[in-house]
Order: sequence, then structure tokens, then C-alpha cells
Amino acid sequence: MSDGKPEFPPELRRDPLTRIWVVIADRRGRPSGQFDERDLEPSACPFCPGNEQMTPPEIYAVRPHGGEANGPGWVVRVVPNKYRAFDADLQLHRKAMGMYDLMPAVGAHEVIIETPDEEAQLRSMPPEQVALVLDAYKQRLEDLRRDARFRHVVIFRNYRVPAGASLKHPHSQVIALPVVPKLVKDRLTAALEYFRAKERCLVCDIIDQEVFDGRRVVSQNAHFLALVPFAARFPYEVVIYPKRHQYDFLVMDDEEKHSLVAILQDVLKRYFALLGEKKTGKNVPYNMVLQTAPNTVPRPGRPDYWGTIEYDYHWHIELIPRLTKMAGFEWGTGFYINIKQPEKAAQELAAAHELASEQQSVA
Amino acid sequence: MSDGKPEFPPELRRDPLTRIWVVIADRRGRPSGQFDERDLEPSACPFCPGNEQMTPPEIYAVRPHGGEANGPGWVVRVVPNKYRAFDADLQLHRKAMGMYDLMPAVGAHEVIIETPDEEAQLRSMPPEQVALVLDAYKQRLEDLRRDARFRHVVIFRNYRVPAGASLKHPHSQVIALPVVPKLVKDRLTAALEYFRAKERCLVCDIIDQEVFDGRRVVSQNAHFLALVPFAARFPYEVVIYPKRHQYDFLVMDDEEKHSLVAILQDVLKRYFALLGEKKTGKNVPYNMVLQTAPNTVPRPGRPDYWGTIEYDYHWHIELIPRLTKMAGFEWGTGFYINIKQPEKAAQELAAAHELASEQQSVA
Repeated sequence: MSDGKPEFPPELRRDPLTRIWVVIADRRGRPSGQFDERDLEPSACPFCPGNEQMTPPEIYAVRPHGGEANGPGWVVRVVPNKYRAFDADLQLHRKAMGMYDLMPAVGAHEVIIETPDEEAQLRSMPPEQVALVLDAYKQRLEDLRRDARFRHVVIFRNYRVPAGASLKHPHSQVIALPVVPKLVKDRLTAALEYFRAKERCLVCDIIDQEVFDGRRVVSQNAHFLALVPFAARFPYEVVIYPKRHQYDFLVMDDEEKHSLVAILQDVLKRYFALLGEKKTGKNVPYNMVLQTAPNTVPRPGRPDYWGTIEYDYHWHIELIPRLTKMAGFEWGTGFYINIKQPEKAAQELAAAHELASEQQSVA
Repeated sequence: MSDGKPEFPPELRRDPLTRIWVVIADRRGRPSGQFDERDLEPSACPFCPGNEQMTPPEIYAVRPHGGEANGPGWVVRVVPNKYRAFDADLQLHRKAMGMYDLMPAVGAHEVIIETPDEEAQLRSMPPEQVALVLDAYKQRLEDLRRDARFRHVVIFRNYRVPAGASLKHPHSQVIALPVVPKLVKDRLTAALEYFRAKERCLVCDIIDQEVFDGRRVVSQNAHFLALVPFAARFPYEVVIYPKRHQYDFLVMDDEEKHSLVAILQDVLKRYFALLGEKKTGKNVPYNMVLQTAPNTVPRPGRPDYWGTIEYDYHWHIELIPRLTKMAGFEWGTGFYINIKQPEKAAQELAAAHELASEQQSVA
């Protein structure tokens, strides 16, 4: 089977003991293959201008000087993932198999091609280009929420092969799911319970304490704060929070968006200065995940209704450099061993700024 | 700092949003270093006979023909992990730091050296040797449960560097924790709620359904069943269940123990036949985790009291070959994409038996 067609339709299954949903999906034909560690340099990159016919037809694109759909001239382009783990054409049908829960993996799986330039790096792109990427995030979130079958949209970025990327051309991915994943529900529940007890947003309180404390602050600007979390799971893990209370990424206004572009590039430059490969210009492999509100349906009593979410939740972006390997202890317990003190990691990242600017002034 | 002494005492911190506990521990000086991917072949292995002085003084050892503690003559030996993430000498003191929860990482972190033979493989050791390893598991569980500060004991095995091992000499690890980790609590809660609704053990019902269905059975013998779980998170993930209802590893009797040795070696041989390196004799990197009951204190009202656990929980062993990389989607949602249908993985593993015996008969 080398035609890339899946042998079976993707399926969502839930483990009765851990209550975790798993997607069982045949993704054969994916460029790098999940079993391979080579850093691919394909002669014909499907994300490069001129190769638009190599991807499924586009969903969204920005062409400042006009041009045909699925032709060149775009600066940002969104296409369905050719090797998708979810399928929007399936019928939503929750069912049982004996004592197990399953459903077809109804959902969307898209790729946001962030720039026409295969060699570009998110940290050093013109800020206006990064703003276009965030606009694409917003557009996809907004659009996918119109589909009532989807309960949650995850937007994430895998940078380099050790972080799970299969192509080096800069890209993010979007997945829309028919369930709210357990780890997301756990966050929503913690925020909700805190709000019920205090009538305050948990993350707003965290931000206040962290700014006052100062030891875990990596950097901040007018509207955003970058922290190493108090209980960071991984060395140099960073979370970026909007300072103003906002439960959802779509609430962010235009001025804030530019502030986010600035802090995101700032953190990535710090990663590069401290952990990157100076020779190749490649940053440390990392994952970036947008943690925002699920697709709330404002109708009490529905299983996907989160009552006070506007007040209790606070969106954020997680950044995890891939420096360590998970081992048996972590798989078995969901418990993490982090060998880098968060305060020390923050201190090093905060100092790496000067390192980064020195390098820039030299270059 | 090259003396291997940690710079700060290990600390347990809880993330307020995910409610996950993290250990912040300085483990400098560890042989492989978590940032390194080399397969180490140290000239002087600290786990080899004759090098007993290279480890901290032993906790437990079996010397069939007698001999001094911390000298040679042992067939199984348990020592504290030299680069431990937990420290048994700390005082248990739960406290707050502003809105955060933390405590000293009171706990035990031990290494079970499974054989004097550095080159041995768990799958092909004499069964009596594997039985001695399981005896050591039992002894450590029993002993560590006597310490009222510990709430849960995790026993696991990281095989080869990609699975997190730092030395090739066959070994397992034991960690005793002052909290029950969230992922373990989630399992206990699911089992408890099922029991409350049905007065039956969830896993016993799973076993019945799986034996009847048959498609996910890898192998079975008198007392144990090896399955690819219905919602397997990883390709070729396998779970081994005792067929008789037993909530805790310590309930297993001697006859059952020998049955467990047989099925464990059987599954590892199947992994080797299907996924192993024939040339080097090395198996696929994998993690093995014993999921058993926490250290229940039989006093209702205590925060660590699990009322009906004897009836509702069912211990098991998880085996995860490390073939795939986790990426942003998995970190962000706790949701997994598995590209191998569990039924197909089970079928291949079930067939791999013949493969394995063919090879054996050739050798």
C-alpha cells in the first residue's frame, strides 16, 4: 500500500480505566514516517510555492497581490493534512462495543503553512509575517467552531523531527475534535472550581503572584507575560499568558496580537541563544500548544456546556523544548521528574536575552 | 560540580491548573545524562559483581551460597539509586507557597539489579532468575509500605537509552511517593465508580469480554492474559492481567508468579521476534510499569483511604515499545494518535510466537 490511502477509517476509542480518548488512525505514507529519525530535505517540498498541487485543495490563504486559489502568490496558506488522523466527512455516531466507548474520528486535521520560505525560522521572521500566522489561527478557530460536531480545537506547532515534525517547512497544525480531551477538561475543572470558591480567575491570581515574586519571569511586555511555571514538567518549559483576563484566544485584540508576536519571538530567541544550534541556525526542537477554551455551546444542560468559562478560564501558550526523554515512571504515573529548577531555568532564559542581542549586533 | 552531589534538595510541586505533581530534582552526575543519546558501555559497570562499592550500601540481596553484604555472590541486589529524584531522609511537610502546593520530595528511589550478568536479557534469562526479580518486587513493595509517609510505590523498567535507561546492565527501578499520582488516582476512581454501579470489578469484566472477543489477545496461560488494549495509546502496547481477581501484586501466589514469569518472557520474545534487532540480540526499547494498588491505610476518613479497593481494583503490567515520538498534540491534550490498529498489532504479536520458536529451533 504505497498510495497513501488509509486502510481503515480513523476511530476514536476510550480506555475505560484511564478514560483517555485515543485516535486509531492509519497514517501510512507520511513523509518522515513516525518510526524514522532522519531530518528530511525533500527535493520537492509540498509546502513550497509552485508545488500547491501536492497538497489537498486549500481551505484558507492570504494573497496580498491577488492570484488564483491553489496557485502561488500566497503568504500564508492552510490545507487539509494529507495524512490526517481525523476525517470531517464521517458521521458523528457515538456508540458502544460491549463495555467500550467508541466513535468515528470525526474531526478536522489541517496544516497552516506559515510562510512561502522553507528556510525561514519563526523566531526571526518579520513580525508582520508572524501576525499573519496568528490571524490564520484565529480564522481556523472561528471557522471550525461553526461545526456543531466539534467540541475542541487544538492548534500546535512541532518544530524539528525530535518534536514530531515530518517536514522542515515552517508550519503549525490544527485539530478539531468531537470530544474535549481529558487533560483539557482537567484544566477547565480546576479553573471552574477555583472560581466557584473565590469568584476570581485562577490564572489571573497566578499572574499576580508571579509578577510580585519575579523569580520565574522570563520576560514581559505591555500585554503578555512569559513564565517558567512553578511546577514545570520539563527543563525550560515556558508558558505565555495574556495579562488581561481573557478566556479565549479570539478575545485577543489587535494591539495585543502584536504584543504576543513580540513575546513569542522573544522567547524563541532566548531558546536559540541558550539551547539552539548556532552553526545551523536551527533552534532546539520544541512543541508549542495553544491552550484555549473549548467550543462552548451556551445552552445549560448540554454535555458540552461550561457555565462560567468566560470568567473562570484564561487561555495561554505552552512551549516545551524537547531535551529529555519520557521513561517508565512518567508513563506509569503521569508524574514528571524535572532536573532543572524552574527559578534557575527562568534566570538563564532571562539572561539569554543579552546573549541573543549580542549575537545579533555581531551578525 | 562534578561530585554528583545535588545542588538543592528534591521538591514536589503541584501545578494548580493540571493538578499534576512534578518532582524538581537535581540529578547531576547520572551516567548517561538525560540530554545524551549514546548507548553506554562503561568499562566499570556499577551493577556488575566486584563493583559493589560503586553503589550505595545494599537494601536487599539474595546470596544462595552465602557471602558478605555489599560483596559478590548475589543473584539479585537492590540498592538506593545514586542519582535519586527522591530522598527518604527528608521530613514530610506539606506546605503552601502563596497559592501553590509543595512539599519536600520525601520518598525512596531504588534500583533492582536483576542479574549479575551484564549481557543477560530479561526475555531469555532462566525463568527462575526472573522469579527472583519478581520476589524482589514483592519484597520492596512490602517493605516500603511499612513507611506511613509513602502513599504509592511504582515499579518500572526502562529498557535501553531511548526508553530512558542510563545503564545497560539489566535493572528495574522502584519509586515510593508521598502522594498518589493523578493518573493512578484516575484509574482508581474509574474502577471505584464502576464497582459502585455494578458491584463488579471493571477489569474482570474487560477480561471476560476480551477472551470472548479474542481479536486483541496476544497470548494467555493458566493464570495470565496478555492483550493489546482496546484503546492502546501506542503501537504494540501490551497489558498483562492476572485472570483471577486480585487488587494488589502482593496477592499473587507462587504458582501464579511462575505463570507471570512465563507470559512476561513470552511477550518479550514476541517483541523481539517482531520488533527487535536480530543482529545485536537487543530487543526494541520499551518501558514496563507495574500498576498496582496504592498503599491503602485501612482507616475511613483518611485522605489516602480507598474503601472497596480489594474488590474494585485489579493490578496489571503495562508494556510500551518506544517506536513513536510524542508531539505537540499529545502534550497539549493528553490525547494519543495510534497509527496501528490494536486488533492488527495483537494479530502480529500472536503470530510472532511461531517466528520466535523457529528462530530458537534454528539456534
